[in-house]
Amino acid sequence: MNPTVASSFVPETPCIIIQDEIMKHNIQSMAHTARRHQVRLRPHAKTHKMPHVAHQQIEAGAVGITVAKVSEAEVMAQHGITSIFIAYPLVTESKIERATALSKQIDLILGVDSEEGALLLSQTAARLGHTLNVRLEIDTGLRRTGVLYENALTLAARIHGMEALRLTGIYTFRGALMNKKPTLDLKSAGEEEGRLMVELADRIRSQGIPITDVSVGSTPTGAYAAAVEGVTEIRPGTYVFQDRMQARFGVCGIEDCAGSVLVTVVSRPSADLAVIDGGSKTFATDVQPNTEPLLLQGFGHVVGLEDAILERMSEEHGMLRLGPDAQRAGLKVGDRLHIIPNHICSTVNLHNRVFFQQGDQLVPFDVLGRGMLE
Amino acid sequence: MNPTVASSFVPETPCIIIQDEIMKHNIQSMAHTARRHQVRLRPHAKTHKMPHVAHQQIEAGAVGITVAKVSEAEVMAQHGITSIFIAYPLVTESKIERATALSKQIDLILGVDSEEGALLLSQTAARLGHTLNVRLEIDTGLRRTGVLYENALTLAARIHGMEALRLTGIYTFRGALMNKKPTLDLKSAGEEEGRLMVELADRIRSQGIPITDVSVGSTPTGAYAAAVEGVTEIRPGTYVFQDRMQARFGVCGIEDCAGSVLVTVVSRPSADLAVIDGGSKTFATDVQPNTEPLLLQGFGHVVGLEDAILERMSEEHGMLRLGPDAQRAGLKVGDRLHIIPNHICSTVNLHNRVFFQQGDQLVPFDVLGRGMLE
Repeated sequence: MNPTVASSFVPETPCIIIQDEIMKHNIQSMAHTARRHQVRLRPHAKTHKMPHVAHQQIEAGAVGITVAKVSEAEVMAQHGITSIFIAYPLVTESKIERATALSKQIDLILGVDSEEGALLLSQTAARLGHTLNVRLEIDTGLRRTGVLYENALTLAARIHGMEALRLTGIYTFRGALMNKKPTLDLKSAGEEEGRLMVELADRIRSQGIPITDVSVGSTPTGAYAAAVEGVTEIRPGTYVFQDRMQARFGVCGIEDCAGSVLVTVVSRPSADLAVIDGGSKTFATDVQPNTEPLLLQGFGHVVGLEDAILERMSEEHGMLRLGPDAQRAGLKVGDRLHIIPNHICSTVNLHNRVFFQQGDQLVPFDVLGRGMLE
Repeated sequence: MNPTVASSFVPETPCIIIQDEIMKHNIQSMAHTARRHQVRLRPHAKTHKMPHVAHQQIEAGAVGITVAKVSEAEVMAQHGITSIFIAYPLVTESKIERATALSKQIDLILGVDSEEGALLLSQTAARLGHTLNVRLEIDTGLRRTGVLYENALTLAARIHGMEALRLTGIYTFRGALMNKKPTLDLKSAGEEEGRLMVELADRIRSQGIPITDVSVGSTPTGAYAAAVEGVTEIRPGTYVFQDRMQARFGVCGIEDCAGSVLVTVVSRPSADLAVIDGGSKTFATDVQPNTEPLLLQGFGHVVGLEDAILERMSEEHGMLRLGPDAQRAGLKVGDRLHIIPNHICSTVNLHNRVFFQQGDQLVPFDVLGRGMLE
């Protein structure tokens, strides 16, 4: 239940505010990109973890969603999402049992990246009298999960031969150009990612394995990877809200960021310092300032105060270093500021609830998929 | 309700496990330190945010607890904690109204660090027919909240003159030696923190303001600050669980860390890489590797695998770089590992629930105070 809250309502801070209109624009924009390149769009719900946002993405043209956890898939399915890709290797029996049960109810696809993992999937599904749709995860340079590119053909053949698995595609997350050596050349990175995957898909098909899906792409690389002939699906996540990191990548402008943290100035101990009521338990710290290639200053963009830098944080305090312009603004104790976080996905993950600004109304929604033990 | 879970129960990962026996030892140990120095102990509950842990701290001798938010104080009071210090400036009327209501029910103390803040506290309390106990926060070098040391005397006098406030003490969090120039010399840092505060308290008293409480100290500096004659209270938080950061400070051994994250190996793409199912949404990233003065390697200590480094994380993936010994250990997909996080406080804050290992039982408790808007 999400009772509408009147415009006179001022939420306690710190809290996240999502500008609904900007979000809707972002949703339409990525749907348009996918249509233009004739690829399917399956957004990663990690950014919002909220079923009502997933529904809007699907209404705009997405074929379904992507998640990282069985628990997230369960929450989304309970709220009416019927096509879900768990882009994460499930390697324990209890989770595979839950995924199999879910797969009997909705269109579910599972990620797999190892022979042991595939065997356990197959054995568990067979025992439960079911066949699972799986996609093989490929490491195109990130050194995360994903079978090494050179070993993919062999593993694909093994999975194809397993009793209760249907290998329907391959997927990856970003390529070497984005990760081994950080770059802002998104076009080259996206094209490389797409090209590597399409070449591999062709080699797998030439072994008589009829895979359909070649799934790639994140928010920064998605549009470029989608342009590669043979790519069939993109899975961007952050685009729904956008954030300061994406703006710095050049994917969007700072005005396209739908999410900000509303904070209150709690202390003005000196002319160059304002302390706000949000620290590392309010703003994610996984995208650190001053690291390549982004070289972001501080932990967020202070809206309307260009030379105020969110320079340091402790758990519940944020320290804004005020430059000359910000000092002239005369910030007082009790003043409120909007700060666009470096990374919105992990910031939303810190909050039990966010507020959507719809016209002059603020509507609270629980972040239903957050904090699940897979 | 916290149903006991039998030893055969294996929770889904990633999840936090607290070794109850180690926690109880840590609670006793800090209580002993406080008694030895004849100071009061008022632990900061930010680390656990769980009433049942706060009760154990009080049973061991603590006079009450410290929190950062009205909402945390409300949760703790609802669960029977009757003496709470909100060590954070409340500067909005709605929160002050809530604090005043709470102050009519329990022994509540509020932090204040500015004249504007104090005025709003006084006016709101007066309007509600109540007098609030407050402590003045002093900046002894951290440059966070806290009135600048040189302005403290004047502000103390103003607050003392306000209608509905009773200025009962002063407090600080760490001193310059811990913060302006990071140091591992905790003894000097703690003693400086204590000395500065005792000197200031004497000057305030000499103005005819009868303050009682001189409250200092965090987990690393607490024992040293407590030894300074005239300090009356310490407010350590992390000690209850301890963590890798504190072990590196020399405050405890790694074997004194009660909290670890239980994770599962989900992928072994190459000999030197194991990927686990915990990333930056599971492990806090506010204490970064390779930063002074701690120079911690990676985001956590991998128990039993000394040369496995939790080197990189994305949201749901942790990348363990395996040294020669860890490679010989033959980690397999599906294996479980305990990882002691760099910073337990912000890590607990990511989890809705943690499990307490009590003998051979695992008992889940919700982190009731987490994720509150203030």
